[in-house]
Amino acid sequence: MARPTVIPLHEVRFHRGYLADRARLVREVVIPYQWEALNDRVPGAERSGTIHNFQVAAGEKAGEFYGLWFQDSDLAKWIEAASYRLATHPDPALDAELDRLIATIARAQLPDGYLDTYIQLVEPDKRWANLHEYHELYIAGHFIEAGVAHFQATGKRSLLDVVGKLADLIERTFGDGPGKIPGYCGHEEVELALIKLARATGEARYARLAAWFVNQRGTAPLYYEEEIKRLGLKKLPVYFYHDRWAYLQAHRPVREQTEPVGHSVRAMYLYTAMADLARELPDAGLAEACRTLWEQITRRHLYITGGIGSEWMGEKFSEPYDLPNDRAYAESCAGLGLVFFSRRMLDLELRGAYADVMERTLYNNVLAGMALDGKTFFYVNQLEVRPAEAHRRYDHHHIKTQRVPWFGCACCPPNIARTLASLAHYSHSLLPDGIALHLYAASEARVTVHGVAVRLEVETDYPWDGHIVIRVKAARPTRFALRLRIPGWCSGASATCDGETVDLAGGVRDGYLTIERDWGAAHEVRLEFLMPVLRVRANLRVHHDRGRVALQRGPLVYCLEQVDNGPQLDQLLLPRDAEIAARFDPAVLGGAVVLEAGARRLIAADDALYSTSTPATEPAKLTAVPYALWANRGEGEMSVWIHEC
Amino acid sequence: MARPTVIPLHEVRFHRGYLADRARLVREVVIPYQWEALNDRVPGAERSGTIHNFQVAAGEKAGEFYGLWFQDSDLAKWIEAASYRLATHPDPALDAELDRLIATIARAQLPDGYLDTYIQLVEPDKRWANLHEYHELYIAGHFIEAGVAHFQATGKRSLLDVVGKLADLIERTFGDGPGKIPGYCGHEEVELALIKLARATGEARYARLAAWFVNQRGTAPLYYEEEIKRLGLKKLPVYFYHDRWAYLQAHRPVREQTEPVGHSVRAMYLYTAMADLARELPDAGLAEACRTLWEQITRRHLYITGGIGSEWMGEKFSEPYDLPNDRAYAESCAGLGLVFFSRRMLDLELRGAYADVMERTLYNNVLAGMALDGKTFFYVNQLEVRPAEAHRRYDHHHIKTQRVPWFGCACCPPNIARTLASLAHYSHSLLPDGIALHLYAASEARVTVHGVAVRLEVETDYPWDGHIVIRVKAARPTRFALRLRIPGWCSGASATCDGETVDLAGGVRDGYLTIERDWGAAHEVRLEFLMPVLRVRANLRVHHDRGRVALQRGPLVYCLEQVDNGPQLDQLLLPRDAEIAARFDPAVLGGAVVLEAGARRLIAADDALYSTSTPATEPAKLTAVPYALWANRGEGEMSVWIHEC
Repeated sequence: MARPTVIPLHEVRFHRGYLADRARLVREVVIPYQWEALNDRVPGAERSGTIHNFQVAAGEKAGEFYGLWFQDSDLAKWIEAASYRLATHPDPALDAELDRLIATIARAQLPDGYLDTYIQLVEPDKRWANLHEYHELYIAGHFIEAGVAHFQATGKRSLLDVVGKLADLIERTFGDGPGKIPGYCGHEEVELALIKLARATGEARYARLAAWFVNQRGTAPLYYEEEIKRLGLKKLPVYFYHDRWAYLQAHRPVREQTEPVGHSVRAMYLYTAMADLARELPDAGLAEACRTLWEQITRRHLYITGGIGSEWMGEKFSEPYDLPNDRAYAESCAGLGLVFFSRRMLDLELRGAYADVMERTLYNNVLAGMALDGKTFFYVNQLEVRPAEAHRRYDHHHIKTQRVPWFGCACCPPNIARTLASLAHYSHSLLPDGIALHLYAASEARVTVHGVAVRLEVETDYPWDGHIVIRVKAARPTRFALRLRIPGWCSGASATCDGETVDLAGGVRDGYLTIERDWGAAHEVRLEFLMPVLRVRANLRVHHDRGRVALQRGPLVYCLEQVDNGPQLDQLLLPRDAEIAARFDPAVLGGAVVLEAGARRLIAADDALYSTSTPATEPAKLTAVPYALWANRGEGEMSVWIHEC
Repeated sequence: MARPTVIPLHEVRFHRGYLADRARLVREVVIPYQWEALNDRVPGAERSGTIHNFQVAAGEKAGEFYGLWFQDSDLAKWIEAASYRLATHPDPALDAELDRLIATIARAQLPDGYLDTYIQLVEPDKRWANLHEYHELYIAGHFIEAGVAHFQATGKRSLLDVVGKLADLIERTFGDGPGKIPGYCGHEEVELALIKLARATGEARYARLAAWFVNQRGTAPLYYEEEIKRLGLKKLPVYFYHDRWAYLQAHRPVREQTEPVGHSVRAMYLYTAMADLARELPDAGLAEACRTLWEQITRRHLYITGGIGSEWMGEKFSEPYDLPNDRAYAESCAGLGLVFFSRRMLDLELRGAYADVMERTLYNNVLAGMALDGKTFFYVNQLEVRPAEAHRRYDHHHIKTQRVPWFGCACCPPNIARTLASLAHYSHSLLPDGIALHLYAASEARVTVHGVAVRLEVETDYPWDGHIVIRVKAARPTRFALRLRIPGWCSGASATCDGETVDLAGGVRDGYLTIERDWGAAHEVRLEFLMPVLRVRANLRVHHDRGRVALQRGPLVYCLEQVDNGPQLDQLLLPRDAEIAARFDPAVLGGAVVLEAGARRLIAADDALYSTSTPATEPAKLTAVPYALWANRGEGEMSVWIHEC
């Protein structure tokens, strides 16, 4: 079993700052709120039905299944988030609530280990029969993740035993050989979960099962072609449009996949498992496939906000460089998937590019998914909105102009919650030779390096400024490497260690500054990242962004909102030579750095629809706010990309 | 009955030139080709089933109904086109073919006059039961138009009698009072057709029935709300998205409608009937409603090509100024509808703006609908295409990158055919005090003015140049007004009459030059329209066209094609001061004026997806061809709007 790279959650505390505030919001508001939503107790929100379904399956109440066939997974993600909260902030009431819930789940589980309330209550004869559309293994995967999280947080085996029984059933059911099903789930997830289970239990057979699922995928003869024949299906659901089996990454064996295709969440969960396996087995071929896919995603399919997936139909990847702003999908879950995949790539090789993307996506695409009050959410994270068009056009019907309390398909809110509740898994890494810091947030971590207890304290107001103080306190002198990420967006960084200037030119490799030395009782490393406002332009192949710039400061991508700039945002032009001032305003959006510049506004020469006259411009003021904070002040236009003049 | 304003078709001949070539193509290729298509004899084309359905309904063969519930109308439009051809170019074989076909239609008609092969063969119990979705009255309208055209071309009453019987059934069935249905068709058409029938037969009751349909529309209590209750329908088809009853212009009484909404073909056919009735009754209130709607359409909803309808879902109008280029709908039939509506507005009042729009739409949106060989067609006329995106994105799935031989829903090809086959109805008007010329094409017309035979000959190479010679030859001296349209696009016009300069400043009113005088045996009027290349900009509210210009010369809108300019058309920039040369090239696209200019092409500073570097440019050449002629040289990118630098 590969060595752990994450610090146990209870060993890290984020005490203040931007990410800590969001994590606290998740603990104090989001997790309790989502519990109410899963119990159908939020007035005005779409019904969930999730707890209800388990209670019915457990025989605790009468009723019918409600919702989509993958509804169970919402609960699993919530349990995972709640378990992470228990790990960092013990709470007897929540602990007891989880115990009661897990008892219900255990009662709902069939004697042979099967667990999927949709199949159990609605189509019991369809068990494992429609792997391309139903989500049995996907749901199993989320419960396995939940079981591992609950075990690690509480030491209790109650849910771990449930999911172990389920995993054993899956192991008996799927694979090569007589009587076994040579298929795999249409929505990947069980693969990465089985690797977690293997690591939590020490049972390598679960990792072998994950590897079998990954390697079987897309091989000839294609399992799904046989399956739809058996089911008598003449055509596939419309969301398979254009892609057919590429929609679920089964068009060819995974090692031969070089371009991200299909449903973007599915793709990310598959690639995450591939990266995990590449390290676990190890498997250089899988690692190479992961590198290729990661490069293709981030060089040709990534929104500047770190979002991926630009097609609503099928929630999927489109052509390279086809990144429309007002019809973006950029699902919160897909962004999270890219965070997971990038984090696993950092385990394979410490390259700053992986952490840069992880940071970009987390700070922009993912955090935009949740309101400042933690009670409303975006599923889709477009980069531009004009409310009248969004409400009227069918090809914008996936666009919400304001966050909503819940979704009929509510995969995103609990996914955001479980990730923010386990922030330390993304900010820190344990390395064979020391510690790496990927994300900077005020925190205290206790780690053991070469058998020595080390405290790692970070003080910073990041992302509002680029001053970072890191205190290292080793219980006894020990030599190890402290690897500190120098963000890719930063062109002016400097560092000191105990007051001495650190030579970055020599010390930085692949985006990380390494300080390898004997560490004693008290050391202080200071990092200074210059944070000018950057004018970012898209690759020329992104025709949607022609003639436009985006503003970025530190890791934050900015946007214009109507509330600050008036309507018709696309008539506001930013001169190429305009100075852009950055100013922290404690009164705006809970306290944020706001950008301001002198701009020009187009003035129509006449009222004609078409005319040979040239529009004039008048002076105007432009105000930009962090994209992740948009839509917290009422409905209005929003745009990330700004026309230049 | 209002006086006729159109010259009988057999009195006008278009002998050469751009429109004449297209009309000849329709006569010689399109009409025979479409006959084959309607008979399911075109290899590789989508099946029509139309003739088949009538033969089955007539008891001439066994079989089942094939196609959509409004398939019958394709045949009616073809009969109308074929009749117009017979009017101008007698053809005994076609005449006999029509006789046989009409005999089949007569046999298919039920004894009480009912005619709709879908209802007869598939849902006989649903007669008139689902007016919001089925098209019985729409089909009746097209057959009425066909019957009138056939009667006027041949003098035969065979089809006129069939449609008279059908109209009488409709009159008995619909209206106020006991036992009558107080409803109206979801797809307007029968209204304008009944007015034609009234004029052709002299029976004013048909016009009264048309007026009843128009006035009943959208009144409370809404007929359709009762209808869906009766049908037990819980929800409307998805193409009613956002609009509900506005989708079919029944959200309020027609006189209270001030904004074009819903399905754009339906809207145009309604407004055409309203304009006809405004003159026929006369009705000043309807005329005012028509003016308002026409202004709203052309000032806020019109593509530069004259296309309308920018939403594929529901083939309908979107928000004002929401005119996306790559996802345009701009259906050929909607453009034709706007031609019909504008032509009727010219009957209400001679304003050049109506003819300007009629010309813009006909020369660009409508003619783009047909290939140079007359054998393939566009239904959707987008203004920009990138083939890879068009093939891949679901929100582009209505976009075809090349014209196709036929459509499952084939409303457009025969609609184009019937309009081009009756070109004289659009180019000339008979006025109470003389003659008006709206469209300029080499032609000879025989008209009777104040009882005197007058020949009107036009010589021109329009639209390639702006020289027009008009010869007026009256059989005996007579005084009348010759009203000549001065195109709205022309900022430099001059005229002579018999060699004498005509004072345009004094003589032009509302876009028409009036020469009112005694006309004798031989006079010559010369018009000279300067035709510089115009750089046209869209209203600032059209964000889709921000920073871009379109090129227009005379009535023709131009576009860039990949075959001339290479790929990545949006990386080609037209400098604001670039001179644009116009050159007639006989070798290009059957002979066309091509535009050429020195341009710049963007060069990427690097390969990054996002970067703070600024792209450079290099010199390039830009070639533009008439938009109506695009996609005649293989698949590739196309764009009407060109980025400026």
